[in-house]
Parts: sequence; structure tokens; C-alpha cells
Amino acid sequence: MNEYKDIRYMKKALQQAEIASNNGEVPVGAVLVLEDGREFAAHNAPISENDASAHAEMRVIRAACKSVENYRLPDSTLYVTLEPCLMCCGAIIHARIARVVYGATDPKTGAAESLYQALSDKRLNHQPDITSGVLANESGKLLKSFFQDRRSH
Amino acid sequence: MNEYKDIRYMKKALQQAEIASNNGEVPVGAVLVLEDGREFAAHNAPISENDASAHAEMRVIRAACKSVENYRLPDSTLYVTLEPCLMCCGAIIHARIARVVYGATDPKTGAAESLYQALSDKRLNHQPDITSGVLANESGKLLKSFFQDRRSH
Repeated sequence: MNEYKDIRYMKKALQQAEIASNNGEVPVGAVLVLEDGREFAAHNAPISENDASAHAEMRVIRAACKSVENYRLPDSTLYVTLEPCLMCCGAIIHARIARVVYGATDPKTGAAESLYQALSDKRLNHQPDITSGVLANESGKLLKSFFQDRRSH
Repeated sequence: MNEYKDIRYMKKALQQAEIASNNGEVPVGAVLVLEDGREFAAHNAPISENDASAHAEMRVIRAACKSVENYRLPDSTLYVTLEPCLMCCGAIIHARIARVVYGATDPKTGAAESLYQALSDKRLNHQPDITSGVLANESGKLLKSFFQDRRSH
């Protein structure tokens, strides 16, 4: 059951990643789903937003927090096309997000399994459930093609 | 020379921490100083801003990025009264902040030296200079008194 839902939302996150790519931003997209089904989608946008913190994950977390008028999102699920970095893992923990589903791993800056296992660190005060590898190939292809295009210019 | 400047800016960061405390937020304050001397100050505000990511550090980084219209702040110094968490260390690295000066250490969530040494991690693509312990007692007193007051209510 979760599997079909995960693929459905990850496809929406991939659409966001494509928007990022079209904007000249590293193609990462995210969708945050609240318990009541409300959805928030965002693409990676640090350059276009002039904001070092404007990763896709941060943008959906902020949008959802504003909408529910709370700094915590306890029963929500975050879908993101790429393994979250340190900053985003920190925000996920602060927001008490219940479940994180991501696509490709990020060997350079990933902090959920690659460089750190921040989301499973029992010393911190929250550990979300994690599902990884959902539509990972599609996410990886977008990233690869983005960086190949950049190198060829 | 740096020492006097550090104390001067940390006093301003402590004033921000007091504002946070008066707002019922964990008392942490930050000041970000650009190379040209422009300053940005902010207090911790997740509850009042309905934003899990609204730590003092994140708020000054965002404000400075918007002001200089860039997602990087390469020659800036960040002053913060408490050791930054994972999220804030991540944002500091993304923004390429040149130097981080902090007060008290945070044994529960500190990611610069306590739980992680994220700002010195050579696998990540930036390592700021770090000075710690500046007016640490003053910062610690504010935090201690804030949590004592909360327990007594």
C-alpha cells in the first residue's frame, strides 16, 4: 500500500526536480504530505531565491509550518528525490517529521546514510522512519544529465 | 584585535538571545557581519515565526543573503551565543561563511564540537575558521535561567 503511495508522491517530487533543473538549479524536488492529506511541493532554489538555505526540503517544511501555524509537523511524510544534507536532516528532526522517503543517495553531502546517519542518531531527540531508493534511477538520471550539461557549456 | 571585536559582536548577539527569552523562545542570538561591516542580527524564533528552521543563525544567514542578493556569503563572520546545531552547521557550510564565533557549547545538539564536528569535516566542501567560548558564561547563564523558569511554572 505504502509502496504505490510512495511512488505517486515521488513522481510529484521528480516533477519539482525538473523545474529546478530548468531554472539552472541542482535538480532536487520535495513534497511534504500532512496526515490530513494536504500537500506542499517545492524545488531546490538557493540561486533564484538568494538563500543558501533554500533546499527543496527546507522550502516545503517552511511552507507547511506556516500553513498549519506550528513549528512542528509530527504526522507528516517528506518525499525528496535526493538523500537530504546535514542542514535538511537537522530541519527534519526539528520539525518532528514522522517519515522520510528519498530517492537517490548522495555520496558527497548525504547525511541520512552516506556521510552521516543523522536521522537515526539516538542522541538527537527524534528519529523519523526512513525509506530510501524510491525512483532512485529517475532522480539519478536527472542529476547526471544536469551536471553533464553544465560541464559541456 | 579580533578578541575585542569578537566580544563586541557577541554582546550584540547576547542582546538578541535576551529578546528570544522574553518571547518565550530558547535564548539564542546571532549577528552576521559582512566584510564591508554591514551587520544582521536575529534571535531564535521557531515558535513565534511558525518555522522549525527559524534558529537565530538561519535567520541572519537568510537576511544577509537577501540583502546581498547572493546565496553565498564568503567573507562574513557569524557570531552566535550557542554552538550551532546540525541544521545551522549545514547552512553555514552552504553559505560559505568564513568564520564562526560561538559562546557556550551545546552538549545535547551541538554539531560543531559536541555531537559532531561538522564545521571541520574535510569531506564537505567548506570549513570555516572557528572560535569558541566567547562570553560563554553569559550565554550559559541566560539558558540556565530560561530553563529554570520554565520548570518552575
